[in-house]
Amino acid sequence: MLYESLSSDKLNDLKKDLESEYNKIKAENLQLNMARGKPAPSQLKICFPLLDAVDSSSDLISEDGTDCSNYGNIDGIIEARRLMAGIMDTEAENVIVMGNSSLNIMFDQVSRGFTHGYLGNKPWSQLDKVKFLCPVPGYDRHFMVTEHFGVEMINVPMTPTGPDMDVVEKLVEQDEAIKGIWCVPKYSNPTGYVYSDETLKRLAALKPKAPDFRIFYDNAYCVHDLYDECRLPDILSLCKESGNPDMVFEFSSTSKISFPGGGIAAVAASEANLKDIKGHLKFQTIGHDKINQLSHARYFKDADGIREHMKKHAEFIRPKFEKVLEILSGELDGLGIGEWTDPKGGYFISFDSTLHCADRIYELCKEAGVTLTNVGATYPYGKDPDNSNLRIAPTFPTVEELDTATRLFALAVKLASVETLLK
Amino acid sequence: MLYESLSSDKLNDLKKDLESEYNKIKAENLQLNMARGKPAPSQLKICFPLLDAVDSSSDLISEDGTDCSNYGNIDGIIEARRLMAGIMDTEAENVIVMGNSSLNIMFDQVSRGFTHGYLGNKPWSQLDKVKFLCPVPGYDRHFMVTEHFGVEMINVPMTPTGPDMDVVEKLVEQDEAIKGIWCVPKYSNPTGYVYSDETLKRLAALKPKAPDFRIFYDNAYCVHDLYDECRLPDILSLCKESGNPDMVFEFSSTSKISFPGGGIAAVAASEANLKDIKGHLKFQTIGHDKINQLSHARYFKDADGIREHMKKHAEFIRPKFEKVLEILSGELDGLGIGEWTDPKGGYFISFDSTLHCADRIYELCKEAGVTLTNVGATYPYGKDPDNSNLRIAPTFPTVEELDTATRLFALAVKLASVETLLK
Repeated sequence: MLYESLSSDKLNDLKKDLESEYNKIKAENLQLNMARGKPAPSQLKICFPLLDAVDSSSDLISEDGTDCSNYGNIDGIIEARRLMAGIMDTEAENVIVMGNSSLNIMFDQVSRGFTHGYLGNKPWSQLDKVKFLCPVPGYDRHFMVTEHFGVEMINVPMTPTGPDMDVVEKLVEQDEAIKGIWCVPKYSNPTGYVYSDETLKRLAALKPKAPDFRIFYDNAYCVHDLYDECRLPDILSLCKESGNPDMVFEFSSTSKISFPGGGIAAVAASEANLKDIKGHLKFQTIGHDKINQLSHARYFKDADGIREHMKKHAEFIRPKFEKVLEILSGELDGLGIGEWTDPKGGYFISFDSTLHCADRIYELCKEAGVTLTNVGATYPYGKDPDNSNLRIAPTFPTVEELDTATRLFALAVKLASVETLLK
Repeated sequence: MLYESLSSDKLNDLKKDLESEYNKIKAENLQLNMARGKPAPSQLKICFPLLDAVDSSSDLISEDGTDCSNYGNIDGIIEARRLMAGIMDTEAENVIVMGNSSLNIMFDQVSRGFTHGYLGNKPWSQLDKVKFLCPVPGYDRHFMVTEHFGVEMINVPMTPTGPDMDVVEKLVEQDEAIKGIWCVPKYSNPTGYVYSDETLKRLAALKPKAPDFRIFYDNAYCVHDLYDECRLPDILSLCKESGNPDMVFEFSSTSKISFPGGGIAAVAASEANLKDIKGHLKFQTIGHDKINQLSHARYFKDADGIREHMKKHAEFIRPKFEKVLEILSGELDGLGIGEWTDPKGGYFISFDSTLHCADRIYELCKEAGVTLTNVGATYPYGKDPDNSNLRIAPTFPTVEELDTATRLFALAVKLASVETLLK
């Protein structure tokens, strides 16, 4: 029963039924939110024992003798570096652990590109034009950083195996103004797609025209599996093997491992890049919060400790993803009005309106009390050229709330699609 | 017995005696450090109870309902803003609480000056020249930030009542390239001088040629009294009263209240400036570490709680300052070879070699195992044009170590001065 194959009369009848159903739900004055990519409060309770990892009876001396209660140490303490290296599948020597936010590290890296340049290259502020490649749909906060610095962002199609590498290769080889690409390699935001080994190899083997081109490799969901563990090859090693050791900055944090905004964040990069970063960092701060680094290292012990902990998070999140996917399938399969991803981890599900009426779906949901991420948020400048993509964040509401919200969402997809076909 | 009035013969005899004494101490292979402006480990123990302020049994909900265990809140939680406002003698509404480092906030403000500009003014990266006024001697890390961004730094003489305001007024009124002045108003680093009310009023009433001129007001030692409490008038109010509401950024942190590098830091500014700052901050981070903010707010309760706590710190630090000052007086009074400050708070004592042989004093100390802050560190570009200033940091060593180190220091001052007079 493809909607497109229905006659106008049938569509009008359908519209009446859908409107009647919609108005009934609207009258319930729902207040539900599927916009926020953050854990639910009940889920976060599993992290609370971390708050006891360091207390007034603790010694605050790190393994290498650093007194975490006092100034010093720009790299982060060794046990925290090893911990973060463990989840990024690299070595501690390639990692600096900083503050509470990987987004802040990324922002600062872009900012340094503009104010000082990388490894002796000209500061971007002195160039006429700076461009970044943006696989779409992607993470709104990445795009907001580059927009804030006046970067021209170029959409690159995202595929189930990662960015369309034919497009990426062609663009970076031709255009020296292209200085970076935003990547979320595992459970990409919002699709949940995982870059294939082939994609990663091609990324690492890029031959960019710009010597200061960098892959901004945001490994935000490196241990955020909902089912079997999935491990990506280490991008730093791949870049090194391809003769591009300095071409990647890898970022990660414990924001969705321990406390969002109360965790620790890290950057991994080549020796030359780390030296460059520290060359700036030493002017910016005397050091990051080593007590929180120590708490995390002592609580989780190692990356295996984190991986075990992540299984507990998965117990909370998995039923939520499954609920949303079950309802979407039950309500929309075979209608030809929507496509959606089936992520095995991460925090989002990506939905595409086949009839390009995402804005109307968003509006209908909003009017009935269900908040979605703004239409266009998954695209640079907040503009989805196809008016098709919607990001669903299933983690914050309860399963019961998700049930209601997703049914309303599916209804909104149907109604908006019928309206579109009748236009 | 002024050294300058001694004959060559007397000076030569004195030199021999001093050298003999110096060599004896040198043979002891001391390893002492008066370079580091940080608390001693024993002193920091008084802060350890803060580590119990939040534990796994705590609710992490702030007064305004913010869940500190999850994302959100770019301003800092209200109780932390009130706490920091309390020690800065301003209102919570004028304050944003951020991460662990006020230096980082200052760095970011300078960086934003370059990348985006303040309140709609042209980004400094588009100007031929950007200048900052630097009261000297001053804080090396301030000067390092502006040097890092290629700012031309202009030395302004520091007096016991603050920067020489005649010089400051004349310069800022004439030169639009002057975009800022670094200030540590209370217990200034390294002199320990406190700006007078008159100085603060004149600062607040400046009529800078540059509309985007800012006072970088680093209130690092706002509650760091060793004797009677000293309270400065609120600079934000003074600026407002003078018709310059947007002319000041005030910074502070708990780095020498709770844990250096493990505390919380804040900026206070006008409504327009805070809006401007948040306009950037929202791209930079999802929020700072609210759990640490909550720990601090719950442990200290309010600014009075902090002021009580600071009395405990003073108990540790006061005898150290007194020891250094006692030895300097006993050894050097009346010789005409050195002058030093007598701070009533803060972390440093400033020493000036009357005969301009600071580098030799530093060298003699170093060779005998006593490390001082690098000569020149208290001046922009690390260059003290008079070769006279040395910064003494008495807080980290024990009183016994300070006794030995300061005696060696005084001896080095004598020997270097005699050498200079004999040249």
